[in-house]
Amino acid sequence: MKHRFFDDYSEGVHPDLLRYMTEHNVGQEEGYGRDEASQLAIRRISARLGRNVASIHFVSGATQANLIGISSMLRSYEGIIAPASGHIAVHEAGAIEATGHKILTVDAEDGKLTPELVERAMRTHEDEHTVMPGAVFVTQATELGTVYRQADLAAVVDYAKERHLRVFLDGARLAMALGSEGNDISLAALVAMGVDMFTIGGTKVGAMFGEVLVIVDEQLGENFRYRLKQHGALLAKGRFLGLQFARLFDEDRLWEHLGRQSNLRARELANGLRSLGVLMAYPDETNQVFAVLPDHVAALLHHDYGFYEWQRLERERCVVRFVCSWATPDLAVTELIHDVAKLL
Amino acid sequence: MKHRFFDDYSEGVHPDLLRYMTEHNVGQEEGYGRDEASQLAIRRISARLGRNVASIHFVSGATQANLIGISSMLRSYEGIIAPASGHIAVHEAGAIEATGHKILTVDAEDGKLTPELVERAMRTHEDEHTVMPGAVFVTQATELGTVYRQADLAAVVDYAKERHLRVFLDGARLAMALGSEGNDISLAALVAMGVDMFTIGGTKVGAMFGEVLVIVDEQLGENFRYRLKQHGALLAKGRFLGLQFARLFDEDRLWEHLGRQSNLRARELANGLRSLGVLMAYPDETNQVFAVLPDHVAALLHHDYGFYEWQRLERERCVVRFVCSWATPDLAVTELIHDVAKLL
Amino acid sequence: MKHRFFDDYSEGVHPDLLRYMTEHNVGQEEGYGRDEASQLAIRRISARLGRNVASIHFVSGATQANLIGISSMLRSYEGIIAPASGHIAVHEAGAIEATGHKILTVDAEDGKLTPELVERAMRTHEDEHTVMPGAVFVTQATELGTVYRQADLAAVVDYAKERHLRVFLDGARLAMALGSEGNDISLAALVAMGVDMFTIGGTKVGAMFGEVLVIVDEQLGENFRYRLKQHGALLAKGRFLGLQFARLFDEDRLWEHLGRQSNLRARELANGLRSLGVLMAYPDETNQVFAVLPDHVAALLHHDYGFYEWQRLERERCVVRFVCSWATPDLAVTELIHDVAKLL
Amino acid sequence: MKHRFFDDYSEGVHPDLLRYMTEHNVGQEEGYGRDEASQLAIRRISARLGRNVASIHFVSGATQANLIGISSMLRSYEGIIAPASGHIAVHEAGAIEATGHKILTVDAEDGKLTPELVERAMRTHEDEHTVMPGAVFVTQATELGTVYRQADLAAVVDYAKERHLRVFLDGARLAMALGSEGNDISLAALVAMGVDMFTIGGTKVGAMFGEVLVIVDEQLGENFRYRLKQHGALLAKGRFLGLQFARLFDEDRLWEHLGRQSNLRARELANGLRSLGVLMAYPDETNQVFAVLPDHVAALLHHDYGFYEWQRLERERCVVRFVCSWATPDLAVTELIHDVAKLL
Repeated sequence: MKHRFFDDYSEGVHPDLLRYMTEHNVGQEEGYGRDEASQLAIRRISARLGRNVASIHFVSGATQANLIGISSMLRSYEGIIAPASGHIAVHEAGAIEATGHKILTVDAEDGKLTPELVERAMRTHEDEHTVMPGAVFVTQATELGTVYRQADLAAVVDYAKERHLRVFLDGARLAMALGSEGNDISLAALVAMGVDMFTIGGTKVGAMFGEVLVIVDEQLGENFRYRLKQHGALLAKGRFLGLQFARLFDEDRLWEHLGRQSNLRARELANGLRSLGVLMAYPDETNQVFAVLPDHVAALLHHDYGFYEWQRLERERCVVRFVCSWATPDLAVTELIHDVAKLL
Repeated sequence: MKHRFFDDYSEGVHPDLLRYMTEHNVGQEEGYGRDEASQLAIRRISARLGRNVASIHFVSGATQANLIGISSMLRSYEGIIAPASGHIAVHEAGAIEATGHKILTVDAEDGKLTPELVERAMRTHEDEHTVMPGAVFVTQATELGTVYRQADLAAVVDYAKERHLRVFLDGARLAMALGSEGNDISLAALVAMGVDMFTIGGTKVGAMFGEVLVIVDEQLGENFRYRLKQHGALLAKGRFLGLQFARLFDEDRLWEHLGRQSNLRARELANGLRSLGVLMAYPDETNQVFAVLPDHVAALLHHDYGFYEWQRLERERCVVRFVCSWATPDLAVTELIHDVAKLL
Repeated sequence: MKHRFFDDYSEGVHPDLLRYMTEHNVGQEEGYGRDEASQLAIRRISARLGRNVASIHFVSGATQANLIGISSMLRSYEGIIAPASGHIAVHEAGAIEATGHKILTVDAEDGKLTPELVERAMRTHEDEHTVMPGAVFVTQATELGTVYRQADLAAVVDYAKERHLRVFLDGARLAMALGSEGNDISLAALVAMGVDMFTIGGTKVGAMFGEVLVIVDEQLGENFRYRLKQHGALLAKGRFLGLQFARLFDEDRLWEHLGRQSNLRARELANGLRSLGVLMAYPDETNQVFAVLPDHVAALLHHDYGFYEWQRLERERCVVRFVCSWATPDLAVTELIHDVAKLL
Repeated sequence: MKHRFFDDYSEGVHPDLLRYMTEHNVGQEEGYGRDEASQLAIRRISARLGRNVASIHFVSGATQANLIGISSMLRSYEGIIAPASGHIAVHEAGAIEATGHKILTVDAEDGKLTPELVERAMRTHEDEHTVMPGAVFVTQATELGTVYRQADLAAVVDYAKERHLRVFLDGARLAMALGSEGNDISLAALVAMGVDMFTIGGTKVGAMFGEVLVIVDEQLGENFRYRLKQHGALLAKGRFLGLQFARLFDEDRLWEHLGRQSNLRARELANGLRSLGVLMAYPDETNQVFAVLPDHVAALLHHDYGFYEWQRLERERCVVRFVCSWATPDLAVTELIHDVAKLL
């Protein structure tokens, strides 16, 4: 296989992070996230958030962050409204339901919620014979690689507040969203507009493991470490989570840089394919490229490239997903475009 | 503070492990534990187990391993019998109950279950108005630093089987147990005697994070990755768990070595204290030393040393816990003994 | 208000049942369903089932029966495939998710599953990142008043077995289904075709409260009383559940009779409306009539009749639901038809 | 068997209740507890409570009331402090743990909590590695037949409030407690002293089924019907719960009367036994009598009487439990005393 475009977490750790962890490995530190490095990382992230938030925690993975965060928002009889394409609705093995909560899905074009879609879900959940909607789930960038603009996201948040719904934002690829062309949302803007809780992904931008869970709302933050512990998410040597995020969020702005770098490769790929007449299934804005290919081309490409078939289309075509990362070499993209050109 | 004897996870990563991770960092690998390093680690651990087991998984922490493992053993109306001092009964923030299962505690001297203690729990749980006991929980080494001998553990396992109870063994400090003086139990022996599931701790013997979950019983192993995923325990870059255990279990036998090393320091400490006339609250067999000190001595020691007060005793005495690790320097132990001598 | 067609549980208890309960009220009986009357009811129901089943239990309500029954079928990482209109998917307040299980919905015409629909759900749930389908949920009669024929239901069951899926049948209105015109399924047929668990509704055919939970599969029946107790479903004076079902299933065949009686009124209503040119939204086969009315007619009818608006349609029309029961008077139907005629 | 003293729920329904249900059976009523009779019962109970409470609900059984009520009080990481003899800790099949919450038991003499006992539990649960105590559980009358006096209960409630713990009172036998000699607590007193939620038992004082769940605290009452529905506890024909409690709490004061009546028989029994030199294991205050008998006497009594052996004692003696109810005939008590006299 020449190159793999399966995902953005097949790569190892960004060398700068590994070096930083090694340099700060020696000596005793308090366990379970009470160490110096974690405190430093929290201060650095806080500084980007514009105002004080309730608390900031580091957990080892995205599903873990989502399930603990979302279940902490909901009363036992509440559910969460999410796009049908939302990661929690499809690819987390029922982790949210395992905490006792229904996901109320709505079909969302491009993977993005709108006030209208949220309202539609509200209208069919109005008494105690149905689940009470308690929160909305948005992903930035979405599972389809698209990005909310400030106005769009604020509209969803405002409507949610109006209906007494909490807002959870899954930021597993937030670095890519913030690094996308035309992006007008900052970390501070998420806080300012009223998102109640969000994650800042590390794994997909070079970390060995780790997602940040930012709890904006004061009440939601109460006793949060109990929740983490109870779900087995308080890492004994939490310092290694702290070290990675302290480095990702230092003055080098590595986190932002790696997000942009991932997008850059994807833009090269998308533009290359487009120049061959290939259509994109969704607006390509971040590091995921959803290309429409004839079935036979996709089949032949599988010999040399790793990627997922996303959807079957009529007329012997399909949507395939190519994911680029901070570590995708220039050459991989050039070769892929070249080979598609030959096959078309 | 001169030295900290709080626990065995305040240290960083053993340098050999960090080096090994760095050497194998570059390049793409399949995600979620399907990588080469994880497969290698599984083969190496399997080789120690004497016969095929259902499956072997790596998770990031001990509470996570316990909660996923134990809940996978129990039907929804079953509980698990455990010593009142068992980690799951006290120090996991209700993680087992959060999966819906009651822990049926029995007072166990030295933290060890016996057939008699298990039987006592069985006698008060006999119809559908009570929880049905479904499994027993043993820890090796126990939370009190003690160690089961082969005959004792086998007796518990045999009795459990007779009563149709599963057996879960928490091996967060299994390296210390196997490295304790007079130990007559091997990893293979655990499998052979019929333990259904057990963990092999990494965090407390030099790993950055990671526990092995060994599922012996074929039926329990079925679809186990679904369980991991649903609890947020499938790490995207699982290769870094695999790498650590591949190294810990290679021909250098680092895992065993670090366990013994931790015990060694604790023996020096216990022997030194004993020579001063200090009594031990429990047989000191592994890397934890439970010493009986006058209250005023404990109070003064707190100025220079980190350790936990474990229990108040009458006559102005208390039990304090000193934990040594693979990284505890010789000097720390010598100084502590010296300072206790001065204070007594 | 002249008459209420809201539902089939607004009525009281059928007088024969109340009389029977009163006659057998005096004296002590064993508690929690171990009484004589419950045993008699079990024998009578068993006699209709054609062959031995694992066990038969009585619980107080339909949601309770569904949540206990379905959760008992599923391993913790499994979900249940259901029509989007299924009662558990909409009108049980997330009771199934509260037991930790996702409902995998498919859009089913007329509320009925088919092998093709089940297969569609299977195709998008194939690895451990998604929920594993563990069972299918069918309702007979469906929430839309329609009825499976023997061949249709057997096809679903056969396909489910082929894919190792359990089958749960919600029979809250099973009496109406069995009493519908052209019905070719008996209680014994449900058992014979391989349904693993089903309920037999009492509340909607004259009982004060109570649903039968029939557990066909031997393995699923194991220790079932523990499940009931744990969910608070073992009624201390279970004899009053037993008494009602002993009477419903005695030689008078009251249960079947009341089901047919409910259908009869609904047929009169549907036929009357049809003769006025009113269309039915779904095939009208049992005691629920889904009629398409102009919005203004529905609005005016609300002055004198109780019924739910089910769905908004285009061109200022809506679907309204009229439910008849064993207690619906002839007159109520006649008057309703008459008043619709006037308004059209 | 001459007479059964197993429990107080083996009897049928008190005739007055059954008559009242029959008289009010005809006609349609709104479902799920929104009917007239339930509203009437709520008004009558409210009138006894002295001041407005958040809400009052009727559910079918005591375990159901406890599990829904208690889980509604606790955040997911909280547990409830209870006497080791508490019904929820022993005889509800792990129903509380099944909702995710640990029960923190303390050994309580006579089954009654004290501020000291609560404090003891607080001291061992102080950080996020343990469960956070969130509530205390008291039973009135207790499982050992004893009764809190006003001052004792108020002390527990006051201490709980001081430590930010909620208070749940299980009143399955509250009628007996209020009817006990020397009782100085009224329903209104429970509300006034700050109990947050309590149950008023119906099943053990003549109801067919049904417990009242009184939610005093405004915040806890919010959306409570969702909780009931999700646990399958909203009965479709809730009117029959309402009817029973409307009658029990009308001006005849049947509920109080039946509680006193149960106690009366138990006093006769206890006094009779005492006059034979039989010791009581606990202060006998309500309708349960815990008598110490020689083993051979207990064994012989089993031929003619139904009762449970509660505990083995040394010197070939045991504690047996005799339970009287509103329906226990005078004769049964006289004969039992007579037969014990012969056997001693």
